[in-house]
Amino acid sequence: MPSLISYQEVAKHNSREDCWVIIHGNVYDLSQFLAQHPGGVRPILKQAGKDATKAFEPIHPRNMVDQLPAHLHKGAIDPTTLPVLAESSTSTSSALSAKPPLSAMFNSFDFESVARQTLHPEAWAYYSSGADDELTLQENHAAFHRIWLRPRVLVNVKNIDMGTTFLGTKTPLPVYITATALGKLGHPEGEVVLTRAAGRKGLIQMMPTLGSCSVDEMADAKVEGQTQWFQLYVNGDRSVTEKLIRRAESRGAAGLFITVDAPQLGRREKDMRTKFVDDAPSVQSPDSVQRSQGAARAISTFIDPSLAWSDIAWFKSITRMPIVLKGIQSGDDAVLAARAGVAGIVVSNHGGRQLDTARSGIEALAEVMNALRAAGLDRALEVYVDGGFRRGSDIFKALAMGARGVGLGRPWLYAMSSYGQDGVERLVDLLADELAVVMRLMGTPTIADIRPEMVILKDLASHAGQPPRDALSKRTYEPLDVPGRGGASKL
Amino acid sequence: MPSLISYQEVAKHNSREDCWVIIHGNVYDLSQFLAQHPGGVRPILKQAGKDATKAFEPIHPRNMVDQLPAHLHKGAIDPTTLPVLAESSTSTSSALSAKPPLSAMFNSFDFESVARQTLHPEAWAYYSSGADDELTLQENHAAFHRIWLRPRVLVNVKNIDMGTTFLGTKTPLPVYITATALGKLGHPEGEVVLTRAAGRKGLIQMMPTLGSCSVDEMADAKVEGQTQWFQLYVNGDRSVTEKLIRRAESRGAAGLFITVDAPQLGRREKDMRTKFVDDAPSVQSPDSVQRSQGAARAISTFIDPSLAWSDIAWFKSITRMPIVLKGIQSGDDAVLAARAGVAGIVVSNHGGRQLDTARSGIEALAEVMNALRAAGLDRALEVYVDGGFRRGSDIFKALAMGARGVGLGRPWLYAMSSYGQDGVERLVDLLADELAVVMRLMGTPTIADIRPEMVILKDLASHAGQPPRDALSKRTYEPLDVPGRGGASKL
Amino acid sequence: MPSLISYQEVAKHNSREDCWVIIHGNVYDLSQFLAQHPGGVRPILKQAGKDATKAFEPIHPRNMVDQLPAHLHKGAIDPTTLPVLAESSTSTSSALSAKPPLSAMFNSFDFESVARQTLHPEAWAYYSSGADDELTLQENHAAFHRIWLRPRVLVNVKNIDMGTTFLGTKTPLPVYITATALGKLGHPEGEVVLTRAAGRKGLIQMMPTLGSCSVDEMADAKVEGQTQWFQLYVNGDRSVTEKLIRRAESRGAAGLFITVDAPQLGRREKDMRTKFVDDAPSVQSPDSVQRSQGAARAISTFIDPSLAWSDIAWFKSITRMPIVLKGIQSGDDAVLAARAGVAGIVVSNHGGRQLDTARSGIEALAEVMNALRAAGLDRALEVYVDGGFRRGSDIFKALAMGARGVGLGRPWLYAMSSYGQDGVERLVDLLADELAVVMRLMGTPTIADIRPEMVILKDLASHAGQPPRDALSKRTYEPLDVPGRGGASKL
Amino acid sequence: MPSLISYQEVAKHNSREDCWVIIHGNVYDLSQFLAQHPGGVRPILKQAGKDATKAFEPIHPRNMVDQLPAHLHKGAIDPTTLPVLAESSTSTSSALSAKPPLSAMFNSFDFESVARQTLHPEAWAYYSSGADDELTLQENHAAFHRIWLRPRVLVNVKNIDMGTTFLGTKTPLPVYITATALGKLGHPEGEVVLTRAAGRKGLIQMMPTLGSCSVDEMADAKVEGQTQWFQLYVNGDRSVTEKLIRRAESRGAAGLFITVDAPQLGRREKDMRTKFVDDAPSVQSPDSVQRSQGAARAISTFIDPSLAWSDIAWFKSITRMPIVLKGIQSGDDAVLAARAGVAGIVVSNHGGRQLDTARSGIEALAEVMNALRAAGLDRALEVYVDGGFRRGSDIFKALAMGARGVGLGRPWLYAMSSYGQDGVERLVDLLADELAVVMRLMGTPTIADIRPEMVILKDLASHAGQPPRDALSKRTYEPLDVPGRGGASKL
Repeated sequence: MPSLISYQEVAKHNSREDCWVIIHGNVYDLSQFLAQHPGGVRPILKQAGKDATKAFEPIHPRNMVDQLPAHLHKGAIDPTTLPVLAESSTSTSSALSAKPPLSAMFNSFDFESVARQTLHPEAWAYYSSGADDELTLQENHAAFHRIWLRPRVLVNVKNIDMGTTFLGTKTPLPVYITATALGKLGHPEGEVVLTRAAGRKGLIQMMPTLGSCSVDEMADAKVEGQTQWFQLYVNGDRSVTEKLIRRAESRGAAGLFITVDAPQLGRREKDMRTKFVDDAPSVQSPDSVQRSQGAARAISTFIDPSLAWSDIAWFKSITRMPIVLKGIQSGDDAVLAARAGVAGIVVSNHGGRQLDTARSGIEALAEVMNALRAAGLDRALEVYVDGGFRRGSDIFKALAMGARGVGLGRPWLYAMSSYGQDGVERLVDLLADELAVVMRLMGTPTIADIRPEMVILKDLASHAGQPPRDALSKRTYEPLDVPGRGGASKL
Repeated sequence: MPSLISYQEVAKHNSREDCWVIIHGNVYDLSQFLAQHPGGVRPILKQAGKDATKAFEPIHPRNMVDQLPAHLHKGAIDPTTLPVLAESSTSTSSALSAKPPLSAMFNSFDFESVARQTLHPEAWAYYSSGADDELTLQENHAAFHRIWLRPRVLVNVKNIDMGTTFLGTKTPLPVYITATALGKLGHPEGEVVLTRAAGRKGLIQMMPTLGSCSVDEMADAKVEGQTQWFQLYVNGDRSVTEKLIRRAESRGAAGLFITVDAPQLGRREKDMRTKFVDDAPSVQSPDSVQRSQGAARAISTFIDPSLAWSDIAWFKSITRMPIVLKGIQSGDDAVLAARAGVAGIVVSNHGGRQLDTARSGIEALAEVMNALRAAGLDRALEVYVDGGFRRGSDIFKALAMGARGVGLGRPWLYAMSSYGQDGVERLVDLLADELAVVMRLMGTPTIADIRPEMVILKDLASHAGQPPRDALSKRTYEPLDVPGRGGASKL
Repeated sequence: MPSLISYQEVAKHNSREDCWVIIHGNVYDLSQFLAQHPGGVRPILKQAGKDATKAFEPIHPRNMVDQLPAHLHKGAIDPTTLPVLAESSTSTSSALSAKPPLSAMFNSFDFESVARQTLHPEAWAYYSSGADDELTLQENHAAFHRIWLRPRVLVNVKNIDMGTTFLGTKTPLPVYITATALGKLGHPEGEVVLTRAAGRKGLIQMMPTLGSCSVDEMADAKVEGQTQWFQLYVNGDRSVTEKLIRRAESRGAAGLFITVDAPQLGRREKDMRTKFVDDAPSVQSPDSVQRSQGAARAISTFIDPSLAWSDIAWFKSITRMPIVLKGIQSGDDAVLAARAGVAGIVVSNHGGRQLDTARSGIEALAEVMNALRAAGLDRALEVYVDGGFRRGSDIFKALAMGARGVGLGRPWLYAMSSYGQDGVERLVDLLADELAVVMRLMGTPTIADIRPEMVILKDLASHAGQPPRDALSKRTYEPLDVPGRGGASKL
Repeated sequence: MPSLISYQEVAKHNSREDCWVIIHGNVYDLSQFLAQHPGGVRPILKQAGKDATKAFEPIHPRNMVDQLPAHLHKGAIDPTTLPVLAESSTSTSSALSAKPPLSAMFNSFDFESVARQTLHPEAWAYYSSGADDELTLQENHAAFHRIWLRPRVLVNVKNIDMGTTFLGTKTPLPVYITATALGKLGHPEGEVVLTRAAGRKGLIQMMPTLGSCSVDEMADAKVEGQTQWFQLYVNGDRSVTEKLIRRAESRGAAGLFITVDAPQLGRREKDMRTKFVDDAPSVQSPDSVQRSQGAARAISTFIDPSLAWSDIAWFKSITRMPIVLKGIQSGDDAVLAARAGVAGIVVSNHGGRQLDTARSGIEALAEVMNALRAAGLDRALEVYVDGGFRRGSDIFKALAMGARGVGLGRPWLYAMSSYGQDGVERLVDLLADELAVVMRLMGTPTIADIRPEMVILKDLASHAGQPPRDALSKRTYEPLDVPGRGGASKL
C-alpha cells in the first residue's frame, strides 16, 4: 500500500499531459483516461491538480471510480495537507435556512418553488430545462387544462380505494417514481432518498441508468417487499448493456424499462447556457458548436443511436423481467410495441427534454389508446404515461383515458432537494389527498369506476398557438377600472 | 344559578386537558368536547382560557352553543374582570372609512373591489377562494365571453317585464340569492342582512345550512309574503338532517335544495394558506397533511359522503317542500334527477370551490338542456343555474339556453360586506337595470320572448387553454408604438 | 326689449325653485323647464345662477335655445358685469402645444393616440367608451385579425381605381363618414369641420341627429356637388321626427339612415364614471341608480323604444330619400329589411356602445350576406358596415365579403380633435394610400376585381375567449433568455 | 483630367438648383439628376455640398455611380481639404465591444438579440420591420407553433444525411440564403460576406437586385464550384431587366428567381417612422403622405407594377437559367405557375414586409401542395418556402409538408451584422446541429425518410386571434402564489 500523497504533490500535476485528481480521498492519474471520458476532456481538466470529489459526486455513482484501471490509482491523499475550504456562503445555504416549514407545502408547485431557490443554479438548470424553446416542456403541463371533467353525483363515495396493480405488483396509488438522472445535484445522498420514501409509502421506484447512486446502492436501500424497476439507456457496447440488465435483475428489479426516445439527448439551452457561464472565464477564442453542451450531453455520449425494433428479441433473450418501452409517442409505434410482445409501454416525451413541439404525453396517450383499440390490442399490454403530472386531477384524467398508471419525475426531485425524504413523503400524501378528493367528487370510489366519458377530450389536440399581437390598438385602449383600488383618493 | 366567574379564573384553564372558554358572556368547559368538535381540536385550543366570542361568532349560529350539554356550562363571566381590549386599528377599518360612496358602484365588480379592501384577509380568502388552481373558479366567469348575442331590432320594447315564477312563486327578476356560508365574516349581522334586502326587493333567498345565522334568525327577519328556500348539507346522522328539514319547513321554507356536489368540500388553497399563516407561530414540527385545511373543511366534516340516488325517496317521504338537487353537472345526472321525480335541479359547480377543471355552470347547462330535451324531460322539472353570473347579459344568456332562473352568491356577500343592506339593494337595482337594457336591445320585452337562437353557443365548449409561450422570439421583437405617448419629446 | 341684466342679479336665482342661467349672452329662467330637460335636472342645476354657455355648447346645436318658450327669456346679460375667468391652464392645452407634427401621423391609431392626450377627459370618455365590459368595442377591432388574405400575383396593377357608388352617388373611396354625436367636445367648431374635409376629399358625410352642429349648419358648410346623408334617431313624438326628416330633405340630404339599434342608449361605464367624478363633491347621500348616467343617456331620453317594423311604411310616405336601416345585426333582420323595401342596411353594433357581447359588424356581415344570398335578396339592397375599421385591409375585407361601403366614425373625431380639418384630410389620404397598397398587392386593380375567395373567413366566428390562467406553474417557470440584453455583464 | 476640387468649393453648391455631392472621392453635379433619382429628391438634397459617401454606400452598389452621365462628373475631391470627422461614438460601437463571445450564441435568436443592440437604429428598423401592424411578420414565426410533431422510435439513426438537391445542385443542407437588400447597413462589406460564408459551408446564395454589393462583386467573391442564384425585381424598363438577367447568367447564376409579390413595396411603419425622426428637424410644415416613406420605398420605385403572367414567356426567351417565381401565396397561383412551365416557386410573403394579414409561408405551403397534388402537378416543379424559419424543427416541418428547400433571410443578416463571416458560419453549424437532432429524434436518417404524417397540421390554419380582454374581473382576482418567493418572510 502506497504511502499518503500530499496535496502539494497532487497540485503539480495540473496539465492535460499530466493530470492528477483527488476523488473521495484517493489520487488518480487521469492523463491517459482524458480522451475516453464520456463527458469530454474539459470537465476533468478543470479539476487537474485538485480535489475533484465535489464535481465528481453528483454525476457518477460512487463505485464508478472502481472501474478505472488499477494502475491509475496513485494512492491515498494525506488529509492533513488538504486546504481548509471555507464552506462558500452561497445564496443556497441562506435560502435553505429561510425556507418555509414543510407543513406550508400544499401542492407540488410549492416544492418546486422552494427548490428553485435552494438548488444550485446549475442543478436547477439541469433539472428544470427542456428542449429548444421549451414549448413541449410547458405543453406537458398546459395540455391538462384542455381536458375538462364531467363529474357524477349521488354515488356513495364514503370509501375511496386508489389501489391498483402495475405489472402484477400491487400499489396503493396509480403513480410511480420514474427514472431521473443526477440525484446528487439536489440532495447529497441522491436517489436512495427516493428509494427510502418509496419504501415508506409503498410506491414503485424506477431506478435510472444515469443516477448519482448505483443500482446496488438503490437496491440496498429498499425494504422488505418493496418493488423496483430498472430504466435502461442502451449502450453502444451491448456487453455493457447486458451486464447492467443482469445486475439489475439479480438485485430484484421487477421490470425493465428501455428508453427508446433518446438515440441522442436533446438540446437543452438553459443547461447549455449555464455550463457556458461557468466555463466562460477560460474561453479565449470562439468555441466550436460541440463544446459546452450542458450536463445532458456530457453524460449521454454512450447511448446507442442505432437501437431498432429488431433488437427487442435480444432483450427478451437475456432477461425474464417484463419489458416496457419508455418513450412511445405515436399510435403506430404503440401497435408495433404490442406486436413485438412487450409487457407495456410508457407514453412519454422524456419530460419535454428531447424534441421540441412533440406533443404532450397526455395528448399522445389519446392517439395511442385509439390505435390500440382499433387494432384490438389495448389489453395486450399495459400503458403508462408521464410528462407534466402535478395534480390529482391530472392523474385522474390519464386513468380515465385508459392509462394503467402515471409516472412522476421532477416533482420528487424538487421535494427531495428542498426537504429530503420528509418532503418526498409529504408529496406522496398531498397527491393521494388530491386524487382522493377528485375521485370522491367525480363519483368514482375505485379506479375501476373511472370511465372515459368522464373526461372531455374535444380540445385536447387543439394547438391554436399564440396569435400575433397587435400593438397599436392596445396603445390607446384604456381598460376599465374598478373604484377603490387606491382607496377613495382615486375617486 | 352560579355566581359570576372572574376572567382570572378562566385564564387558568388553558390546556388541552383543562380547557375553558368564554362565549357570549358564558363560560364553558370544553375539555371533553374537544374531540367531537367538527372543526377539529386546534381552533378551540387557541382560545383556551380566553374569550372566544369573536372567533366563534362568524362560524356558528348564535344558538349553537345551547346544544352543548348543560353540565359544560360553568356559569356567567364577571364582565368587570374582562380585559379592556383596544379595538385593533386594522387596515380594514381605515379602508372602510375611505371607501367610495355607494353611488360610485356601477356594477358587481365594483362591490367586489371594495370588499377585497375592506374584508379581513381571512374572510376574503374564504369567500373568494376556489378549488386547487382555481381554473373552474375563473372559468365560471370566462365562459360567458364565449357566448355571443344575436340581437333583433324594430321590436316594440317600450315596456320591459322581467318577472317570472320559481317553483310557483312570482319573482320580479329571474334571479335568486343562493346559499353561502359564514355571512358574519363579512358583516356583523350575517345572513339576515340578505333576508332584509331580499324582502325589500322581492327576491327569493336560499337559506344556508352553514350560515352564521340560524334558519330561525333568517325566518324571523322576513317580511309578509317573502319567500325563502332551504339549502341542505346532508348530515351523516339522518335524524339531524330530518330535524333540520322539518324545522325549515315549519318556518315556511318553500323549497328544499339538497346539495349533491359536496360529499367532501374541495381543496381551497388560498383558504388553507391563510389559515396556515394565522397558525404559523405555534407550529413547532412538520404538520400532517390533515391539519390547517382552511375554513371550508373545518365546518364541513359532518357532510355525508355516502348520499346516493336511493336516498331521494326518503327525503320525499319527510317533507312536502318541492325538492331541488343542487350541483348537477352532467346531462346523464339531469335525466336521472328528472326520473327521480324531483321538482328541479341547479346546474352548478359550487362556485368553482369543489372540483377544479369541472366545467362552468353555463357550459354544463347546455349539455343538461340537450339531454333533457333528448329524453323529452325538459318540461318535467325546473332548471336553475349558478356560477360566475355578474352581468345582466350573463343572466340573459342562461335564460335563452333554457334556464328558468339564475342564482348569485358571492356578489351579494361582497355588496353586503362593503355597504350592508343598502349595498345589496343597490346591486339588485344595478342587475335589474343591466338586464332591462339587454332585453330592450335584444328585442325581447318579456322573458317569454327570449329564444335559443339569440345566443351563439358554437364556442361555449371550446377549451383551447393557454398555449405554451415562446420566449426567445419575443425577446427581440419590438412592438409598434404610437407617437405622442410621452409628448413630442419621444419624436 | 328689456334692459341688460347684471351678473349679480342672475347669481341670486340659483336654486331648483328659482333657476336662471346665461347662454350665449342671454338670460333664461329655467325653473319650470327643469323637469322637461331631456338630460335631467342635475346638469342645469349645476349652472343655476351662472353662465352655462361652456357646458351647453358641445351638447346642443346653437339654435336649440330658440325652441324655448319666449317668456323664459329674461333678457340679455350686461357683459361688463361678467367675471373675468382665467382660462384654465389644462393639461389639454399644454399637450396641444407639445403634440407631434401632422406629418408624423402614419395611421389612424396615431391620431387616436394624440387625441387621447389632447382631449378633455370627459370628451375622451364619451368618444372612446363602449358598453359594459367593452368586449364588443374591442371585438370590433379584433375580429379583423381573424380574417386572413389570399393574395394573387402577376396581375397588372399599375392603375388602381378605388371608386364606387353609394346609393347612386359616386365616391372616390368605398368609405363614408358616419354619424357621431357631440363633435364640439373634440373641436370648437364641431361637425362642420368634417363637412369641410369631406367636401375637399369628395367623401359622403352622414349628418347626425345628436350633433353639436345643426343640420342647417352642416348643410351650409357643404360645397357644390357635395353629398350628405341624414342619420335619424326616431323621437317618441312623431311630429318632431317628421319635421327633422323634411328639414334634412329640404337641405339636400340624399339618404335617410334610421338608427334601429338604439331603443335605449347602452351602459357606457367609462362615461358614467367620468360624470360621477365631476359631480362627486356635491353628493351627500347615496344616489339612486338612475342618476349620473353619463353623456350618452343624458342626450338620448327622447328616443322612442316602441319603433317597429310596421313604422317603415310611414317613413316611406313622408320622404323621397332612400331609406337605410342602420344597426342590423342578424341575417333574419336583413331579410326583413329587404322585404320591407328599404334601399339599404348598415350592419353595425353602434361602435360597441350598445350591447356588450354582440358580435362585431364584420362578423355579422358574414351572416347577413349569407342570409340575403340564401333568400335571393343580396342584390335587392345595398349593404354597408361599420365598427372598428382602422386599416385599408379592414376595408378590403368588408368589400370582399360583399359590402358596398364602409363607415368610419371615431377615427374622424380623433383626427379632427387633434389636428382639425387638416387632420381629417390627412386621415383620408392615409386610408386611401393603405387601401391602394392592399389592392395592388392583392392583385385587384378595381373594386369589381375584389372576390370573396380572397378572404379566409374560417375563424371569423371563433370566440375562444380568454382561457382561465393557471398561476402556480407560471410562478416557477423561468422563460428562456437571449444573451446581450444587459450587455456582456449578463454573461 | 480635371484638377482636384476643394471641399470649400463643393460646399457652395448646396441647393436644389445647384447641388454637388462627393461620392467615393469624386464630385458630381446632381442638380439635373435630382428629379430622376428613384429614391426621391430629399435624400440627395440632404447631402448637397457635402461628402455623401456614407449615406450612398449601403443603398447602392459601388458601380452604380458609373451609370451617371459623364458630364455630371466634375472631378476628384482634394482629399487634403476634407474635414476630419470624429468617428461618432455611437451606442453601436460600445455595444460591439461589449457583445458576448461568438461561442455564447446557441440559436438564431441569440444573433438577433446581439444585432438589435449593435445595429444602427435605422438599419435595425429597415431589417426588422414588417408591413402595417406586423401581424404577418409575427405570424411567420408563430405559425410553426401550430404544427406539432409525431416522432417515430426504434429506427436506426446512427448516420444522419441532410443532403438534397436544389434545381439539380447538391446542397449539404435543405436550406439556402435568400435575397435580402442593403447588406452594408449591417456590415461594411455587405453581401459578399454571405457569399464567402456560403462558399465555406457549401450553401447556395441567392443574389439580390437591391444588394449593397453588385452581382459582379458577389460573383467575384465565390469559390470554385460554389452555386449562386439571382433574384430579380423587374424594372419598368425591360431593357434594363434584360441587361441584369444576362449579366447574372454570364456570371454563372444557376437560377433566376423573379419576385412576383412586390408590384409595390409594402408600408413598413417602423422604417417610415425612423426615417421621419431623422428628418424631423428640417420639417417646417405638414408633409404630404408621400414623403418620408422609409428605406423600402426609397429604393423600389423602379419596380414594374404591370408585370403579369403573360410576361413569363419573354423571360424564358432571354435566359437559359431555370426560372422560379418568388412570392406565390395561393394554390391557384401555384397551379398557374406549374402550367406556365417554370422550374419552381417560392411560397413566400416577402418576410411579412408586404401585405399584412397575409398568411405565413408555411400555412400557404399547405394550400399550395394540396392544389398541386389535386392538379397532378406536384412533381412538375420544385416548391421552396421562406418566412420566419428559425429552428431545425421549422425546416423539418416544411420538408414533411412537401417543400424541397427552405430560404432564410434575416437570420444571416443578423449573424453577419453582429459577428461577420464567423457569425454566419456558426449559424449554419447551429442550424445543421438542430436539424440533425430533430431528424434523429423523429426517426428519419435521410431527407427521403421524412413523411407527411409526421407533422400534425390540424390547427395550422387556425386564426383565433386575440380575444377581447375583460378588465374588471381581472382587477379583483388574486392569482395563487407559491411560498418562498420572497423568502420565509412572506409566510
